Amino acid sequence: MNIESINNSKVKAWAKLKEKKYRDSEQSFIIEGDHLLKEALKKGLVKEIIALDDIYKIEDIPFYLVTKEIMKKLTSQVTISPVIAVVNKIDPRDINGRVCLLDNIQDPGNLGTIIRSAVAFNIDTIILSPDTVDLYNEKVIRASEGMIFNLNFVKKDLKLAIEDLKKDNYQIIGTNVQKGELLKNISFSAKTGIIMGNEGRGMNQSLLDYCDNLAYIPISNSCESLNVAIAASIIFYEINR
Amino acid sequence: MNIESINNSKVKAWAKLKEKKYRDSEQSFIIEGDHLLKEALKKGLVKEIIALDDIYKIEDIPFYLVTKEIMKKLTSQVTISPVIAVVNKIDPRDINGRVCLLDNIQDPGNLGTIIRSAVAFNIDTIILSPDTVDLYNEKVIRASEGMIFNLNFVKKDLKLAIEDLKKDNYQIIGTNVQKGELLKNISFSAKTGIIMGNEGRGMNQSLLDYCDNLAYIPISNSCESLNVAIAASIIFYEINR
Repeated sequence: MNIESINNSKVKAWAKLKEKKYRDSEQSFIIEGDHLLKEALKKGLVKEIIALDDIYKIEDIPFYLVTKEIMKKLTSQVTISPVIAVVNKIDPRDINGRVCLLDNIQDPGNLGTIIRSAVAFNIDTIILSPDTVDLYNEKVIRASEGMIFNLNFVKKDLKLAIEDLKKDNYQIIGTNVQKGELLKNISFSAKTGIIMGNEGRGMNQSLLDYCDNLAYIPISNSCESLNVAIAASIIFYEINR
Repeated sequence: MNIESINNSKVKAWAKLKEKKYRDSEQSFIIEGDHLLKEALKKGLVKEIIALDDIYKIEDIPFYLVTKEIMKKLTSQVTISPVIAVVNKIDPRDINGRVCLLDNIQDPGNLGTIIRSAVAFNIDTIILSPDTVDLYNEKVIRASEGMIFNLNFVKKDLKLAIEDLKKDNYQIIGTNVQKGELLKNISFSAKTGIIMGNEGRGMNQSLLDYCDNLAYIPISNSCESLNVAIAASIIFYEINR
């Protein structure tokens, strides 16, 4: 189907997916570019493809040929993509390996980068506190470099999530910038949950009692703390080392 | 001095510092917020302070009280800062420790995060290829969390820089996402230079011949590569481990 008017109802509905409340009500989100489209297709999540050229047509998936003006309205990057897609949100599956719990992460770039590193270092599941930035924010998706499709996500109150993990014999490792056990001395079991805290204030102190151990990465006195995506990635690296 | 007009020549001159060419010709740049101001004051680099309130006045430093409208024009964040400052660029000093060489890093957030991690993990100097994103870009400064003032920076052609380092008995470690020596098996001397490459294409292949070794971080097949700031930080962590 060809769409040429920027006021077309389809265009308006797609544009609304830039906002979290519409992504929630529609249970879908927008991805931009060839690379992400391929990853979403592999997982069978693509609902509609919207492109500037017929070459992006794929059998059995509704296809819309649009103008550059429409594409500009729908994309969030400076240079418009030749193709975008409306994609179903990813259903959670059972947890089956190491877990990272994110407590109120606010920066979408940080969340995306943590996702990319989590896949790189074989983390199975990310549990997001309800106040963490939306997983389907376009900046999260971009920073994840398509890795959002290669991980299991659960959105849940962290206390409830930790209680469930403990029933399943998980060890819970918190993080603290000032104290704890040296990261390199910690032995991580196959059932480990690592909590990473908010950019400004760190891990919520009310979660401390749930931690079997606190991981500590020694850094220079000149520097207050590491970026949270950096700290998470170093811990993931150490687990795999 | 009070400034109330957005068309004041001072305001115009400060606003120009958002562009690299004016930062270069004036040899100065803008920092935003209390935290960065404190770091710049420690180093004696502050030329002018511009604020919404007299509480930011400091003896012997020219001070300008401005309106919110002017501040909005000068700052780059959504919420305006109560104070900004014009700061002299940081002069390079002699290299005296471990070095990170950045080959055409393009994302200001990545450069800022690498700077923050470099300070955290006791890197002495960052050498920036001339085509790397400008060190004084406001996004770099923000992502560095003020750490820009705690590091030595040299802007130089990387081949010439490496030749100088080699004369000084430095070992040069390149990075490659597919091959090389396992990072954890590399022993880093006090005189080590680590090359990190561009986000898209990695380290320039013409630098390969200069490398004594290539560091390799093993990652899952599901993931093509790590973010460059993550990879750099993991290497810095491993050096200090």
